[in-house]
Amino acid sequence: MTVHHPSFGRVAPDRVIIFDTTLRDGEQSPGFSMTAAEKLRMAHALASLGVDVMEAGFPVASPDDFAAVHTIASEVRGPVICALARAARDDITRAGQAVRPAERRRIHTFISTSPLHMEHKLRMTPDAVLDAITASVSLARDMTDDVEWSAEDATRTEPEFLRRAVERAIRAGATTINLPDTVGYATPEDMARMFADVRGNVPDADGVILSTHNHNDLGLAVANALAAVAAGARQIECTVNGIGERAGNAALEEVVMAIRTRPDANPYSNGIRTEEIVRTSRLLATVTGFDVQPNKAIVGRNAFAHESGIHQDGMLKDKRSYEIMTPESVGWTRSNLVLGKHSGRAAFRAKLAELGYGDIGDNRLTDAFRRFKELADRKKVVFEEDLVALVDDEVVRDHERIRFVEIAVSSSSRGPARAEVELMVDGERKAATATGDGPVDASFNAVRAVCPHAAELTLYSVGAITGGSDAQARTTVRLEEDGRSVDGQGADTDTVVSAVRAYVHALNKLLVKRERQAPPPTQAGVVNA
Amino acid sequence: MTVHHPSFGRVAPDRVIIFDTTLRDGEQSPGFSMTAAEKLRMAHALASLGVDVMEAGFPVASPDDFAAVHTIASEVRGPVICALARAARDDITRAGQAVRPAERRRIHTFISTSPLHMEHKLRMTPDAVLDAITASVSLARDMTDDVEWSAEDATRTEPEFLRRAVERAIRAGATTINLPDTVGYATPEDMARMFADVRGNVPDADGVILSTHNHNDLGLAVANALAAVAAGARQIECTVNGIGERAGNAALEEVVMAIRTRPDANPYSNGIRTEEIVRTSRLLATVTGFDVQPNKAIVGRNAFAHESGIHQDGMLKDKRSYEIMTPESVGWTRSNLVLGKHSGRAAFRAKLAELGYGDIGDNRLTDAFRRFKELADRKKVVFEEDLVALVDDEVVRDHERIRFVEIAVSSSSRGPARAEVELMVDGERKAATATGDGPVDASFNAVRAVCPHAAELTLYSVGAITGGSDAQARTTVRLEEDGRSVDGQGADTDTVVSAVRAYVHALNKLLVKRERQAPPPTQAGVVNA
Repeated sequence: MTVHHPSFGRVAPDRVIIFDTTLRDGEQSPGFSMTAAEKLRMAHALASLGVDVMEAGFPVASPDDFAAVHTIASEVRGPVICALARAARDDITRAGQAVRPAERRRIHTFISTSPLHMEHKLRMTPDAVLDAITASVSLARDMTDDVEWSAEDATRTEPEFLRRAVERAIRAGATTINLPDTVGYATPEDMARMFADVRGNVPDADGVILSTHNHNDLGLAVANALAAVAAGARQIECTVNGIGERAGNAALEEVVMAIRTRPDANPYSNGIRTEEIVRTSRLLATVTGFDVQPNKAIVGRNAFAHESGIHQDGMLKDKRSYEIMTPESVGWTRSNLVLGKHSGRAAFRAKLAELGYGDIGDNRLTDAFRRFKELADRKKVVFEEDLVALVDDEVVRDHERIRFVEIAVSSSSRGPARAEVELMVDGERKAATATGDGPVDASFNAVRAVCPHAAELTLYSVGAITGGSDAQARTTVRLEEDGRSVDGQGADTDTVVSAVRAYVHALNKLLVKRERQAPPPTQAGVVNA
Repeated sequence: MTVHHPSFGRVAPDRVIIFDTTLRDGEQSPGFSMTAAEKLRMAHALASLGVDVMEAGFPVASPDDFAAVHTIASEVRGPVICALARAARDDITRAGQAVRPAERRRIHTFISTSPLHMEHKLRMTPDAVLDAITASVSLARDMTDDVEWSAEDATRTEPEFLRRAVERAIRAGATTINLPDTVGYATPEDMARMFADVRGNVPDADGVILSTHNHNDLGLAVANALAAVAAGARQIECTVNGIGERAGNAALEEVVMAIRTRPDANPYSNGIRTEEIVRTSRLLATVTGFDVQPNKAIVGRNAFAHESGIHQDGMLKDKRSYEIMTPESVGWTRSNLVLGKHSGRAAFRAKLAELGYGDIGDNRLTDAFRRFKELADRKKVVFEEDLVALVDDEVVRDHERIRFVEIAVSSSSRGPARAEVELMVDGERKAATATGDGPVDASFNAVRAVCPHAAELTLYSVGAITGGSDAQARTTVRLEEDGRSVDGQGADTDTVVSAVRAYVHALNKLLVKRERQAPPPTQAGVVNA
């Protein structure tokens, strides 16, 4: 079975194409929508990760969706850029226009083939659906050689009708045939049966790439994807962190690492640079504002963490006791053995070095270690990200142009709050007073009065503090400017001070980014408004 | 194959025993530790859910662990109460003592059988391991008839040695044999092979319950559990929300709903009351402070949500288009079709009625609808929990003994913050001033000065605000007193006001709980300190 594909040329028999739909299926789930700038940022990350195809969006949905796909097609190099279209002229035309700037471009058109969908959703006869397949795929082929056709709700489609539909799509020129489990209903046995049936009984099915698209409603998405590949599929559609409609899609990182970790059971190759997995996962979490669960496979912060005495003992004796892959292979710095209140200064220094703070001086180390001990007294376990939050204030300060000096706020529920903020800006002490809706809003307004800037505040959050109100508040602030997005963190027992530190941290990061990407500013301040 | 089991009597051939290990494997992952009171609360919820066996802890680990298991064994009726023990006399003795008060009790003892674990972790010869199995199971049988034995790292054990080990355990009196995939390494094919081998080749294996325990490191836990059952296992070990070491265990809700939704593929019965699933999941999230991802199967808030135009259209035409199970069947109030800025007053009222606010008056509805519209302008989608947060302030107020009146704070990073809080307590206006570390801490101290109480503040968190600092801050405050835990929510654009509202809300809930559970207080206030 050797397929010649318009975008990939000769595809080796064991090669599985990784089709990422984070920006389409992932983005359309509630709360996960992204701006065009955020999508572009994710698209560059997906290209670095090495996905073969990225589905960039659904251009007909809105002018914004069209623009996002068009920008990605213009600027992102490497993967095939794909756009989604229903079986309608306008959908397909817009999809074709949106991906036109890409080096390699795909139109992905779909129509439902299950009795339930045809009757209740489409209100079309089976014959009308077959004709729509021929018309839509032919139209798409007029715009690009690389056309994917999907039988929506394939797993609830009559096998005989599915074969006829696939045959039509192949005859009309589809080069990839996707058989999605749209409702997350299938078992691995169902997938094996469906792919074997289509491969064995549809003429020329071995001349195209068969593709699998799985939802996780019953927790079976990864197993279903692998069962489809075992039965002949050679494209897996998946998303970073497993986001997507309802329970989400098969997680890219799980599918890829299941293949890597068990080559004996899954003898397939792919082009993913696995060391980029954690970075890409983190970026998506930052962009969407939704972190993965601690116990998310591969990318959750507990995925390589070992706390129980039994497991820590085994781990110290031989890592293989409880680890089937190395954390480094997916981009973690090392196994996330968490620190606790009994950890010593040597372990603390080693941990900081692993986190990229190897150059920390002795005085700073002493300060940071003292703050770590205070934190460990309040929290049962201290994660890497806690350490980074704790030490960042100390280390990043060397490169800071703006520094927090002090703040005074007064507020009353009867009227606006008032904040006076004093900052050091390029070595010069500056202060301003402002009002606002509560102490945090007033403080941010005062910072803006000291350092005028046009960046927009798009996220403000305080992490859960489980040690009571006297524990350290960890604030995250996101600023966006010209498609650049930066997150600043602040930590302090005083929630307002923590918020201002986070805002100043974000401003400093923005300045660094501006300097890297643009000519130096005409004046020393941060003024661009 | 009909097994006679000491705790369950005659077990029907299609009956799968649901063994919950949320309180043991789940609780031992970093950040998920629970207090004895929280464990007891979860244990009652698991009994309501209908689990057959609950593993309540690892008694030898600490006196606290022992006490938690002992309390559960004394107070929770219904499920078999199980305690974990290594193959050591002290472990087994303590486990037996801890579960002794239970109506039906199990000791679960384990030892590693893989070459890697035997050599590097245990530093024991295979023969010594076999002798330890006989000794440990025999000792456990002296304390209870219901003994489970686990071959730790079974999936990396030599098949021939595994058979010998299982045979030893059965001969020593084990009534359940668990073959865990300790490191999350197995594929469904591996599980099928291992269980078929043990069932087919170990004498008397068909007289005991075979059990499967799966970790999700490669995203395959649910598929592996089902493959084991298809090959003869009749106990599934799992956890609520899939929590557990590293990537967690097979999620109870996914395993159970995969069986329920696909009885054709999985023709097994179990005793879970599925309508309790969401409630149990929510309780665990509250107790541990870790919410599940929005796209978590079954229990994530997007699991039944349909946002994309394509899917909403299909859903309105026929629910079955995109739903393979009803949200009601797992305890959701209805399909989580989210509200947005275009939702009308009728839809809003209907939604509130579903959420238990059917008795809301017209004036309140008007107020709440206006606040909902304001919120929808800022957020793309409004979830049920947003509505509850928004309306709760209005409705719960009728039953409030303490009401927020106003607050004034002043703070400076140079010294302590100062807050003056005025509250209505049982109709009487009371005020107090206090200092603290930042405005929030000072405000909470002032509330405590107005209403002295002994409850401990154990959680303070502010949800992510994505609309900028002028958007509504949603604060959660948890108070604990005598094993009772309440969460209060507050929402306001001013973060300090939001925090105080949350604190007052929690205090009101605590008062309601106290009145329900104890004789009326001797004085009108909330004084008990």
